[in-house]
Amino acid sequence: MNQVAPNMENKSIAVIGLGYVGLPLFCQLSTSFSVVGYDVDNNRINELSRCIDSKKSVDRKQLCRALSNGIVTADIKKLSSSNVFIVTVPTPISKNNKPDTSALENVCLSISTIIKKNAIVIFESTVFPGATEELCVPLLAKSGLRFNVDFFVGYSPERINVGDTEHQIKNVSKIVSGSTPETTQIIASIYREILSKDIIVSSCIKVAEAAKMYENVQRDLLIALANEYSEYCKMENISIDEVTKCASSKWNFSNVSPGLVGGHCIGVDPYYLLERASSKGIKLPLIQKARNINENKSINVANRIYNLIYDSKLSSPKILLLGFAYKPNSCDIRNTKVSVVLNELRNKGFYVDCYDPLVNIDEVYKEYGLGLLSTLSDINSFDLIIVMVEHDSILQLIQTCKESHFVYLRNLL
Amino acid sequence: MNQVAPNMENKSIAVIGLGYVGLPLFCQLSTSFSVVGYDVDNNRINELSRCIDSKKSVDRKQLCRALSNGIVTADIKKLSSSNVFIVTVPTPISKNNKPDTSALENVCLSISTIIKKNAIVIFESTVFPGATEELCVPLLAKSGLRFNVDFFVGYSPERINVGDTEHQIKNVSKIVSGSTPETTQIIASIYREILSKDIIVSSCIKVAEAAKMYENVQRDLLIALANEYSEYCKMENISIDEVTKCASSKWNFSNVSPGLVGGHCIGVDPYYLLERASSKGIKLPLIQKARNINENKSINVANRIYNLIYDSKLSSPKILLLGFAYKPNSCDIRNTKVSVVLNELRNKGFYVDCYDPLVNIDEVYKEYGLGLLSTLSDINSFDLIIVMVEHDSILQLIQTCKESHFVYLRNLL
Repeated sequence: MNQVAPNMENKSIAVIGLGYVGLPLFCQLSTSFSVVGYDVDNNRINELSRCIDSKKSVDRKQLCRALSNGIVTADIKKLSSSNVFIVTVPTPISKNNKPDTSALENVCLSISTIIKKNAIVIFESTVFPGATEELCVPLLAKSGLRFNVDFFVGYSPERINVGDTEHQIKNVSKIVSGSTPETTQIIASIYREILSKDIIVSSCIKVAEAAKMYENVQRDLLIALANEYSEYCKMENISIDEVTKCASSKWNFSNVSPGLVGGHCIGVDPYYLLERASSKGIKLPLIQKARNINENKSINVANRIYNLIYDSKLSSPKILLLGFAYKPNSCDIRNTKVSVVLNELRNKGFYVDCYDPLVNIDEVYKEYGLGLLSTLSDINSFDLIIVMVEHDSILQLIQTCKESHFVYLRNLL
Repeated sequence: MNQVAPNMENKSIAVIGLGYVGLPLFCQLSTSFSVVGYDVDNNRINELSRCIDSKKSVDRKQLCRALSNGIVTADIKKLSSSNVFIVTVPTPISKNNKPDTSALENVCLSISTIIKKNAIVIFESTVFPGATEELCVPLLAKSGLRFNVDFFVGYSPERINVGDTEHQIKNVSKIVSGSTPETTQIIASIYREILSKDIIVSSCIKVAEAAKMYENVQRDLLIALANEYSEYCKMENISIDEVTKCASSKWNFSNVSPGLVGGHCIGVDPYYLLERASSKGIKLPLIQKARNINENKSINVANRIYNLIYDSKLSSPKILLLGFAYKPNSCDIRNTKVSVVLNELRNKGFYVDCYDPLVNIDEVYKEYGLGLLSTLSDINSFDLIIVMVEHDSILQLIQTCKESHFVYLRNLL
């Protein structure tokens, strides 16, 4: 293959996908570059155009400033003068935990209709190792352009941590990789322009893909261990929180709490890896076991709540789950495991309401078919309240309740 | 139970077990206290009396200084005026991976013959949660003294990392716990005297025991993941080392390399936990799976070496394993997995020598029944050399070899 450098004197960047990953990136890039933001969802573009981000992934000021430098659009043709595309579309899983790369594939096909000679397509979405070159490149090549001659690709995994104000896009290190050394250099220079932390250059795209996957499966594994050890500590009648606090005083211990693993990353990415490994005839029993433990935790929690109800001896108790988002102080409902707990209890025939002041209940209904309370008129009318997500607003809410009335999820893990 | 404070105006401390954990502790304590060091092994006492530490766990100057303030003895009666006993004896596993607490039990029985009213016995040895109070206290009570009335106990897990000059006894945090609040305070005051880092007080002994166990099973699990992911990376034809380096740029990623898990802690302690859990009817499938992966890694490595030999097409190759200790730059042979690899290859009928300039080959023979080379006359007479342990001296040694002649273990993991 003829390894040439893309000609890249004037960078015109398009960010594709304006969600939790793409929008902060769009805003950050707009401080240094000419940027177009694209999202397939017209409603999203409408709200962003009005300087509103319902996902609360950037603040209003930042968004307004970005929109004064760049535009957002749902029309792919508006990207035809871009020569750098950064793809941040979701890579979720299906109901039966299979990777769903349709958004990624569709984006590649869309780009293939507008991509010009010398363009670079950078992927930030989490994928299985090999996906950029084996899945995306052939779709981009439908443009008629030749890979690594007429167009180039790169992979630079996103490290957005929803709701984490300490680790913002501009102050975390970033891995970059490209399909040719020159492409890698150009990609590194783009990110170097907008980040204050290290740029780590990997020798090939697959290493960068595998590194991102490793980060997330390691996290999944550590939480699974915390979940397993938590059960053990319960049996020993000691507190996993205190044990973890003590162990965390060791210099190389990872301070991880037990929990329900929801959200878009940790509970999802391992399935991409497992599917890839399986397709190559390789088993990853430890990663699989960790995943199973974390998946089963929601059912364990539902059973513990069931036991609480049983022990309470109330005949038709009114139960309230407080919080639905997948993590505290976030409105993000992606892959939240509260849905599993709620479904389990309702399927057992219990009267269970759920209230979360941060989430959009129409979205919840659309995504999960679950009805949530729109307002909470009388919290004291419930017989048992489970604090599923410790939003600040929820912690404030329960201050009006008797202590005997509510239980924290963390005490059921 | 009558919870009273031990009377402890003048502390006279005995350190029981003068190995990798006890000797550094003895030396450190001797800077502030009157200390007697006890070891059941007469040979060990003889060498220490002459300011020699064949385990190289402390330097000669430090040892000589300590001996000017305290004595070492193999006679338990010399400890009869001590009122604080710190137990650091090994808690190994048997050939079939069952906990072997005999040294710990014997020490408790020995102490019970000399212990006086108001004494405190502190355990530093790694044990299953519950061991101090359920296993040790009843043995100490054979003295006729009453627990928490006449004598008291505590648990403060050791954090010795063999060969690690950065994390020395005096500059790492330490967890302390005692059988009464007053005992805990006295124990904390002893360690506070000799350590420059935080003392973490746990609410009960079992929490401190469980914290130590958690530290080590978490480490075992992370290495097992690295071992599993390393196999996956091999299939993808990418370097686990580079993937790990990239992933380590994430703020919460634990930088852990694949490897054979030997030594006294990480490969041993999980069996104590598994046995305890099993005796209580609890399964710990993730911890068990991690242990299996790490145990099997030695066999995988032997098989990879077998494949190398096979590929080399040499009819009767002479093979050399370089290094036998369980970690680089250490003479520690406890639970080294090089023994498994060596045994596997010899059992397959290969001519395999092993050389380690740091270890005592008589000890190796005694412990493993394996003969090692005492000197290495001609390294170039071997057809295949595997660098099993990267001692500085070994890395220097192979500089005289052709690159095609040797392979690093890390490339076989």
